[in-house]
Amino acid sequence: MKRRQFIVQPNFVCSHQTYVLEGAFRSYFVNDEGIDHTIQFAIEDWFISDFNSYIHQTPASLFVEALEDSIVQQIAYTDVEELCSENPKFERFFRLVAQKSFAFSQRRVLSNLGKSAEERYLEFQQLYPAIIQRVPQYALASYLGMSPEFLSKIRKRLTLKS
Amino acid sequence: MKRRQFIVQPNFVCSHQTYVLEGAFRSYFVNDEGIDHTIQFAIEDWFISDFNSYIHQTPASLFVEALEDSIVQQIAYTDVEELCSENPKFERFFRLVAQKSFAFSQRRVLSNLGKSAEERYLEFQQLYPAIIQRVPQYALASYLGMSPEFLSKIRKRLTLKS
Repeated sequence: MKRRQFIVQPNFVCSHQTYVLEGAFRSYFVNDEGIDHTIQFAIEDWFISDFNSYIHQTPASLFVEALEDSIVQQIAYTDVEELCSENPKFERFFRLVAQKSFAFSQRRVLSNLGKSAEERYLEFQQLYPAIIQRVPQYALASYLGMSPEFLSKIRKRLTLKS
Repeated sequence: MKRRQFIVQPNFVCSHQTYVLEGAFRSYFVNDEGIDHTIQFAIEDWFISDFNSYIHQTPASLFVEALEDSIVQQIAYTDVEELCSENPKFERFFRLVAQKSFAFSQRRVLSNLGKSAEERYLEFQQLYPAIIQRVPQYALASYLGMSPEFLSKIRKRLTLKS
């Protein structure tokens, strides 16, 4: 699929989990004031979806957008459930995916609560060096909860330090 | 266990998942400024832990505290993994728990980003009427991301409206 295409949009049910074979995606939420909050990035070997919509098969709140031309593998909710019922290996696989995702999400909440903007940037850089080089500045800033101008200031300050 | 006892504390590995048979718990994070953020509540039939610590078996960041005298069932990480390997029914059960937890966590992040303080209170009241009556005002306020004074104002305003 092409850059800027959407695989999930608000008000449509997110019926698939998407596994990235090649490319990069971001999921984001736009609030009533029109402010865009990046929830997750995904590059090769990551899953991305609006998980709340997917798991309850209810309308999505998020956009999921391709940041690059990408190749994905999509698995429908019903197929995942069928695979899991038929073969414990899939049950296990999707248990581990869900657990990892939940732990990731919890860690992110704690970073937002406990770390300064600069600390969040450094943590992200350390954990996801591969992602930081591929996503646009505005998307990274909105993931880290700061303006693009502020992110750019932090980057300059860190370059001067090093 | 008694009210105010801790089942998880920062810097200790959270080696168990705790299932609440009777009672109420909250997990919370204290940042460098000493501000206390409630991450989750749990009453009967809920699991609670520091999931990031549990899943990676690394030191915890959260406190998990009994809000009432409580009865719990605790399952060690290694036992969960063994049960899951032996019996696909457990694999399935813990997959569903993890998925539900992840979806819950995602919904909470979106509420914080997209809803006003009053909307967050009303949503919580609608989703968890059983919890709202049992947890202290300061804990609920810190869950909803507001001061106890502000929560009290919202409650007064809503009582006047109704």
